[in-house]
Amino acid sequence: MDILLLSNGKIAGNQHVMEFASDAVVEQIKRTGAKNLVLIPYAVIRSSHDDRVALVQETFDALGLDCKVTGLHRAEDPVKAIQEAEGILVSGGNTWVLNKTLHDLGLVGPIRKAVLDQGIPYIGWSAGTNIACPTIRTTNDMPIITGAVLSSLNLVPFQINPHYLEANVEGHMGETRDERIQEFLEVNQYEPVVGIPEGTWLHLLNGELSYHTANGKPLKLFSHGEDPVYYTAEQSVQFLMAHSC
Amino acid sequence: MDILLLSNGKIAGNQHVMEFASDAVVEQIKRTGAKNLVLIPYAVIRSSHDDRVALVQETFDALGLDCKVTGLHRAEDPVKAIQEAEGILVSGGNTWVLNKTLHDLGLVGPIRKAVLDQGIPYIGWSAGTNIACPTIRTTNDMPIITGAVLSSLNLVPFQINPHYLEANVEGHMGETRDERIQEFLEVNQYEPVVGIPEGTWLHLLNGELSYHTANGKPLKLFSHGEDPVYYTAEQSVQFLMAHSC
Repeated sequence: MDILLLSNGKIAGNQHVMEFASDAVVEQIKRTGAKNLVLIPYAVIRSSHDDRVALVQETFDALGLDCKVTGLHRAEDPVKAIQEAEGILVSGGNTWVLNKTLHDLGLVGPIRKAVLDQGIPYIGWSAGTNIACPTIRTTNDMPIITGAVLSSLNLVPFQINPHYLEANVEGHMGETRDERIQEFLEVNQYEPVVGIPEGTWLHLLNGELSYHTANGKPLKLFSHGEDPVYYTAEQSVQFLMAHSC
Repeated sequence: MDILLLSNGKIAGNQHVMEFASDAVVEQIKRTGAKNLVLIPYAVIRSSHDDRVALVQETFDALGLDCKVTGLHRAEDPVKAIQEAEGILVSGGNTWVLNKTLHDLGLVGPIRKAVLDQGIPYIGWSAGTNIACPTIRTTNDMPIITGAVLSSLNLVPFQINPHYLEANVEGHMGETRDERIQEFLEVNQYEPVVGIPEGTWLHLLNGELSYHTANGKPLKLFSHGEDPVYYTAEQSVQFLMAHSC
């Protein structure tokens, strides 16, 4: 497998989505030779799915990659489109809508087969990273739909909190991100949570997990009953693959 | 009915939970004559339920009210405890755990009957306000449990976003609160969302809805396809009661 899980789409100063991880994207596309990429746009709520496809196509064009990005929402048969894709891209937006749509369309099995069995490259950011986890229980998004589905693609065996941040709005009394993750750990004591700040990503290549950062920010690992531990890009995070949920 | 829905528990400078709304609490307790109050503590994750009961008892003691606060988690028969309660208090914490526990214990019907039919006073803050809505789809909390239940007590016919704030952490690219609510409206175009900032509350007394604020902050009403509208405590918000979800 060749899976890139980005915390988010853009950081300050970026013109294109995935720009802060562009070297990793270029390497992945060249390594896998993928040309026909399918974008899963279902998380996008406040703009059109077609617009999101165009934005992502711009990224690949700007990177000088000869790739064609097609929106899965335009496919007559979404399952077939996944089966025929040479690469799968999953845009951020609302995790709840994205995850439920994948289940409603019967796409969970086909995506897992393509990515895990056939080695089709996967790039997700934000909600697209949330759904690569066993469940979406560590999303930051509002549950805007009534039919909630929590279980997800389980491409990695641990929970990720994307857009992870330590800062809080001054004076705001609502829970901090760390407090929300601590609540998760109280209820799920054997499931660590990996907080990845904006501008960072995880890469799972043929079973080897590595952490990368465009701005030097470390990964923060939360485990029940222990103080959180920071990991830099120079440190191994392979042990995370041994966690089973 | 006599329902107080607070945005949150404490604002800066408060020593006790509900302190910023203490006049409203005193008036409600005196108006209803409630002495035996049941606290629903299931949202509390990072401290003990007993500790939360003690904290809330301190509030009533500090207000000079002769009330006894009992934790519902200590009741042998929670349904019976609700049926015998003279007042129901619902603490903040994690909305998902709170709402699912109410359903698991069969408490939704008994609480609705007590509050809507028998006029037992209800005070909720944060998660305790979220569950007074038709659903918990406008919670800010992380969905830390796998069995998600979205439908809730439906004591008011509209969705509330508690801890509502406009500020954002500088440089953070994740969705703002307004953007999250806009996503809700895109999916649920006929369901307005009422954002109530910390230090504010709604009061539903015998069908009459009013808005109150300890810090002058206005309520912010979000409706699909329209600019958000602010309402001060001097303006009527009774029209919100006409919304049906």
